[in-house]
Amino acid sequence: MNERDALRAIAADLPAAGDDAAVVDGTVITTDMLHERTDFPPGTTRYTAGWRAVGASLSDVAAMGAAARAAVAVYADEVFDPDELDAFVAGAVDVCEAVDAEYVGGDLDEHVEFTTATTAIGDVTDAGPVTRGGARPGDALCVTGEWGRSAAALRLFKKNSDEAVERANELFRFTPRVADGLALVGAATAMMDSSDGLARSCHQLAEASGVGIEVERDAVPVHPAVEELAEGSAERFELAAHFGEDFELLCAVPEAEVDAVEAACPSGLTRIGTVTEAPEEGAPRVLADGDPLPDRGFTHGDK
Amino acid sequence: MNERDALRAIAADLPAAGDDAAVVDGTVITTDMLHERTDFPPGTTRYTAGWRAVGASLSDVAAMGAAARAAVAVYADEVFDPDELDAFVAGAVDVCEAVDAEYVGGDLDEHVEFTTATTAIGDVTDAGPVTRGGARPGDALCVTGEWGRSAAALRLFKKNSDEAVERANELFRFTPRVADGLALVGAATAMMDSSDGLARSCHQLAEASGVGIEVERDAVPVHPAVEELAEGSAERFELAAHFGEDFELLCAVPEAEVDAVEAACPSGLTRIGTVTEAPEEGAPRVLADGDPLPDRGFTHGDK
Repeated sequence: MNERDALRAIAADLPAAGDDAAVVDGTVITTDMLHERTDFPPGTTRYTAGWRAVGASLSDVAAMGAAARAAVAVYADEVFDPDELDAFVAGAVDVCEAVDAEYVGGDLDEHVEFTTATTAIGDVTDAGPVTRGGARPGDALCVTGEWGRSAAALRLFKKNSDEAVERANELFRFTPRVADGLALVGAATAMMDSSDGLARSCHQLAEASGVGIEVERDAVPVHPAVEELAEGSAERFELAAHFGEDFELLCAVPEAEVDAVEAACPSGLTRIGTVTEAPEEGAPRVLADGDPLPDRGFTHGDK
Repeated sequence: MNERDALRAIAADLPAAGDDAAVVDGTVITTDMLHERTDFPPGTTRYTAGWRAVGASLSDVAAMGAAARAAVAVYADEVFDPDELDAFVAGAVDVCEAVDAEYVGGDLDEHVEFTTATTAIGDVTDAGPVTRGGARPGDALCVTGEWGRSAAALRLFKKNSDEAVERANELFRFTPRVADGLALVGAATAMMDSSDGLARSCHQLAEASGVGIEVERDAVPVHPAVEELAEGSAERFELAAHFGEDFELLCAVPEAEVDAVEAACPSGLTRIGTVTEAPEEGAPRVLADGDPLPDRGFTHGDK
């Protein structure tokens, strides 16, 4: 059983869960766990780790169209190095400040490898949370920001020079799209963050909404670091669409509202495709330039 | 640097943290991480693990005198066994129901050993949160429930018979003292839960409040399972006071209010000692029957 099947099984039992975050009486809550071995390549500073781990949870708050309120983290390691812990907390505090939230501490734990579990809470606006399930045929499919920054960071971490590692750390410290999420509330019919990659996120949003999706490959905004590191358009699209962990927003917006919402999104909003009628039984749900876009990306337990 | 020193260092930087749970705009939030190797002895069912892990976070909500609202968990394991996952979720759902909260799911993660990170949120009442820092000389020192159940459970797990393991699992599934915490709000001047054990908790509460504490050993309510498994009063007190992980509440209550509050606590409230003036420099802060009570209990990173 892989992670997605297991999540589906849990979601079936828990009506409040199953989206990017759960909503309880107007409060959004979401939690994640990250490990040194799988999530923080050699060269990742503890400051970057604190920023990125807490940012991942804040990204889920953003994906619901909620205002971020606070975050906590469990910090587990073999030994407690005070400088590393301070750096982690500083990163956690700074990413919270970047989205007007408050980092309020957490817990420490002894563990076999550096592991962190982060939780963020947020407040739903009067327009309500935005789920993955409301996209309608004819909506524009849009994304925030530029894609592939985590893929580019991974390549830079492997280069192992001081300069490359510093750039990789910068790329890893994404700004959670809370402000964009709030700008999209009321307009977006469906929204999610892209932690599993663009391709997989398109499949998830299409499935949750019971629709199809057509993506235009060349419309996907690719991060400049990917342009620089990847050779040719096929490799660029691979890194931008299938790598994952970019923490941008993917959303469906009625055509008539795209321009107004785009102007309100501080990270930019790019139209990359169209929501279509649900495909016939057996037909591909997501197309890119007319060809099936494989449901392939980053999933724990899928190896 | 051990866990307590590290927590103190973090708390100094984060004014909102440092108690059993952080409080942000009236919402209490707290997070914990538990591991198979250190926290779930062989024989612990996944149902018990889900109950206990989520219960540990709900206990922190209780310790603030807040109403529990919801909990989430990250469930990490080497492989996802659907039956184990279902059992974990069932335990999490049931412990939430026991305190009128809602389990709203969480996340899955692949990891080298079964690990869970749980987070609970709650709502502060109009009487405000109860911190560890308000105990005053002359207050009665009180505890909920009966002590030593986790110590007794550990001994039963080691016996390894089906019957002993079943009883151990039952003992591990404590009811978080949310109803008691709510009954104590407005009366208790200081409160905390006892995850590090009675002795250590007395030291923490006395230090946070800037007071001394005198405990009467025979007044500490010992769980019947401890009475049965331990030989002699010294061993009983050791298990009840120094083992930890009991998740009962320790609080200071003005003398005049003890009887009324006791009647309102569903788990019972027992007076076990008195809050005293702060000791002179170098003198012991916590006494048990006149002798220093060592600040000894369960602390990660303290080995």
